[in-house]
Amino acid sequence: MLGGMQDFELRVPRLIDHAAREHGRREIVTRWADGSETRTDWAGIDADARRVARLLEELGCKPGDRIATLAMNHAHHLATWYGAIGMGGVIHTINPRLFDDQLVYIANHAEDRVLFYDRAFQPIVDRLRDRWTSIQHYVVMDGDGPDAFRTIVDARGADYAWVEGAEREPCMLCYTSGTTGNPKGVLYTHRSTVIHAMAELQPAVFDLSGRSVVLPIVPMFHAAAWGLPFAAAAAGVKIVYSAVNEPAVLCDLMNREQVTHSAGVPTVWLGMFSHMDSTGEAPRHLQLVTIGGSAAPRAMIEKLMRMGIRVNHAWGMTETSPIGTMGARPHDWDDQTFEQQVDQVAMQGRVPFGVELRIVDEEDRELPRDGVATGRLQCRGPWIVKRYFQAEEDAVDADGWFDTGDVAALHPDGTMQITDRAKDVIKSGGEWISSVELENAAMGCEGVAEAAAIGVPHPRWDERPLLLVVRKPGATVGEAEIVAHLGRHVAKWWLPDAILFVDSLPHTATGKLLKTALREQYGDFRVAAA
Amino acid sequence: MLGGMQDFELRVPRLIDHAAREHGRREIVTRWADGSETRTDWAGIDADARRVARLLEELGCKPGDRIATLAMNHAHHLATWYGAIGMGGVIHTINPRLFDDQLVYIANHAEDRVLFYDRAFQPIVDRLRDRWTSIQHYVVMDGDGPDAFRTIVDARGADYAWVEGAEREPCMLCYTSGTTGNPKGVLYTHRSTVIHAMAELQPAVFDLSGRSVVLPIVPMFHAAAWGLPFAAAAAGVKIVYSAVNEPAVLCDLMNREQVTHSAGVPTVWLGMFSHMDSTGEAPRHLQLVTIGGSAAPRAMIEKLMRMGIRVNHAWGMTETSPIGTMGARPHDWDDQTFEQQVDQVAMQGRVPFGVELRIVDEEDRELPRDGVATGRLQCRGPWIVKRYFQAEEDAVDADGWFDTGDVAALHPDGTMQITDRAKDVIKSGGEWISSVELENAAMGCEGVAEAAAIGVPHPRWDERPLLLVVRKPGATVGEAEIVAHLGRHVAKWWLPDAILFVDSLPHTATGKLLKTALREQYGDFRVAAA
Repeated sequence: MLGGMQDFELRVPRLIDHAAREHGRREIVTRWADGSETRTDWAGIDADARRVARLLEELGCKPGDRIATLAMNHAHHLATWYGAIGMGGVIHTINPRLFDDQLVYIANHAEDRVLFYDRAFQPIVDRLRDRWTSIQHYVVMDGDGPDAFRTIVDARGADYAWVEGAEREPCMLCYTSGTTGNPKGVLYTHRSTVIHAMAELQPAVFDLSGRSVVLPIVPMFHAAAWGLPFAAAAAGVKIVYSAVNEPAVLCDLMNREQVTHSAGVPTVWLGMFSHMDSTGEAPRHLQLVTIGGSAAPRAMIEKLMRMGIRVNHAWGMTETSPIGTMGARPHDWDDQTFEQQVDQVAMQGRVPFGVELRIVDEEDRELPRDGVATGRLQCRGPWIVKRYFQAEEDAVDADGWFDTGDVAALHPDGTMQITDRAKDVIKSGGEWISSVELENAAMGCEGVAEAAAIGVPHPRWDERPLLLVVRKPGATVGEAEIVAHLGRHVAKWWLPDAILFVDSLPHTATGKLLKTALREQYGDFRVAAA
Repeated sequence: MLGGMQDFELRVPRLIDHAAREHGRREIVTRWADGSETRTDWAGIDADARRVARLLEELGCKPGDRIATLAMNHAHHLATWYGAIGMGGVIHTINPRLFDDQLVYIANHAEDRVLFYDRAFQPIVDRLRDRWTSIQHYVVMDGDGPDAFRTIVDARGADYAWVEGAEREPCMLCYTSGTTGNPKGVLYTHRSTVIHAMAELQPAVFDLSGRSVVLPIVPMFHAAAWGLPFAAAAAGVKIVYSAVNEPAVLCDLMNREQVTHSAGVPTVWLGMFSHMDSTGEAPRHLQLVTIGGSAAPRAMIEKLMRMGIRVNHAWGMTETSPIGTMGARPHDWDDQTFEQQVDQVAMQGRVPFGVELRIVDEEDRELPRDGVATGRLQCRGPWIVKRYFQAEEDAVDADGWFDTGDVAALHPDGTMQITDRAKDVIKSGGEWISSVELENAAMGCEGVAEAAAIGVPHPRWDERPLLLVVRKPGATVGEAEIVAHLGRHVAKWWLPDAILFVDSLPHTATGKLLKTALREQYGDFRVAAA
């Protein structure tokens, strides 16, 4: 049939083109690790990105090559993303908190050609340089001097023309910080990245416009910073970056720059609350806080909501770009009591258009969306992984479903509620106890800073819960008070058979509880047979 | 390179799938022409759409066939859109306000196979049935009886599985109500429609979420109802339809159904204001009003803003799906005075990500984005026309630019300001006088209901402005007061050489001033040589 609409490949450089052209003077502020601050804008990021692209070509990089970063959040990191992608390359963000063996495996598996890194990670570079087999060039991203990003990049022209191509070509590579086996790479395409960025703007997701001022606490090496660097360009958002995540620094920046939106994992907010309690300060312009990465405790949600802040409880993973669901307010929000509103936000919310969810039982049979049945959560959509980087088979089943490894319920109105990670479920007498629910209930108890629940072997029930608790500084909360508190929130048979008080709990590089380490350390713990 | 994201064709049926699955109980309310009201929901629209698809297959329709509608806004019309598109067809909305010859030309040119129509348009069908050469089947959309939509559709099963295909296949056909020459068909694709719908959700465009309640006054036969039927499904919006556009009916519906968003051409709001003035009633829940189709007078914008309503001043056309720009609030909105805010909204706003604009002079040289230069406005992007239906050549130049026929300025911050239609510009002594600005200034004068400015021949200046004015009921405003008012808003040499008072002005089928008719009627008018 003759006729139709214009060709327009959904390519990431269109995002920075748009930001530079339509929102060129909108600022990008960076608070660096050394305490200094710099300001640029979207036109400046565009110019720097073109200089980075030129540099990469001079270094011999070709379209499709992987360009790695080992860096915190700052404007040079952002320009490097757009520069590497703009010359047709694949930006590969490496998480500097990983163990050496993982850092070596990931960079070699990705065949990274160039590494851009922060001075703070010089020890990592010195230690691993000889083990990284593909990296040919190193660029320091912060500070000054003849070898620094600013000097090298300023010496290049900003007249570079982006490499064009097809929208299904790759543009970004992020490895999952998998707790078992080798990390796996998720290879985002231009198309998946642009569609995901467009979806993120809507009010039910990040609610971003040219009026928004975003301080993304989520690191740029964590699941593409939740897509914010792309969505921000699409909307012309002002970004405020901090290369350090100290609550005092963040709170001060948020107030001085009038930050309206922030996003990060739950532990970040624990730190902020502690800062608020000890200083009386608080971020005064925040309108919307997005919490994801792991389930947010109810007490945290409630505290933020009492500050008048809209809380978006998000669920996703590296494999989902990462927005899977977002806990936007439902249409009857204004008719709910505060308690009901907190209950609502404590769940993980609904899918934006594009994502489809289902839950299945152990035989892969779809379970009802009745808010009661729980099963393995599966998803599909345009920004969900199909095949891991260099894998020999797809990560999805014949119908395109990707198994997330989470256990969830789906409510009739579409709201999704994570109940556990499949591998963290405590199987007691053939029934499932959610370790996450137990932990979040425990964290609502006065004096408890953090809690972790794991299953330990039990002669009669197969497994029973063991609860590990970190007390708040100065708190004296004891086992009896915690059990009494839990008794008001969970079924009696969910109550832990033992509670151990510890000084700290181990976390993964992205801030999640490291359950494998806990199971290793406490797996031999035996609770008394009831 | 091995690896990547899932395949997911951007097809329109994914929108209704999403709405039915995730927002199935969100209501679609219709107030019919006979005053009756019905309520269904997205699950109901999905089921009806599948029944319509089944019906179309029974009638012998094949993928690619054009299915026409001649109907006002209601739930059956919505279900017919999704049904026709879901069976692989192309929904073709015909504007019932066109002249007979145009109605005949359009349906025959489109080779429509089936026509769904409202009883109100039975006279049109009776009159033109013999001249429509391709329509084989007629379905009445409203009312009851054995031949009515409800009866016929209810007799079909809702278990129809959508026809799948490529995202660049066509799904919708809308003809421009061109004031010269034959109407031209714009053929939207699944891809352009879905990308456009996603862009519309963002706060800077329609700001739609599952909490929104939209009463689209813009008719479904006008530029795909501005994409709202698609965007609403993507967000799970509640839609309130009225098959008649009487201000009293609309105002009552808006209040009873707690409508938060509305959208329509300027004349709709003139009618609403008159209703408000005479009854003291007002829509109480409205948060966001989008005005487009033609430039909104400043006084209208101001009046709505004083009601506490956010006004989005939009620009677009059938060829742009239709969102070209949207007058969202800039980041420094809160620092502006009310007057500055009104000035801001009186311009047409900025492009969402996807659309690119430029202005060019008569030799196609790009003009600066300085807010001063005016030139022919051109655009390109994924939801902009490339080639009209059945045309033999593209409607864009070699670089993909589509010439909109509008004259505009682009401000340094990206804000676009329409100054006129290219063909309506009044050329006086080698300079341009904007007919639109003159009309809008005149409409700000006490006692003026509507005004139209056209250029009439002048021996010395080539053309000079003639202003035609419709007084408000009972008003006695005279030429001297209007000239004095205009003198405070436009340059002295823009002042009309003559003002004629008339009882009414002619409009196109989409509510725009019909300048061709005015030029025909008043082209012989001669102003005294100065």
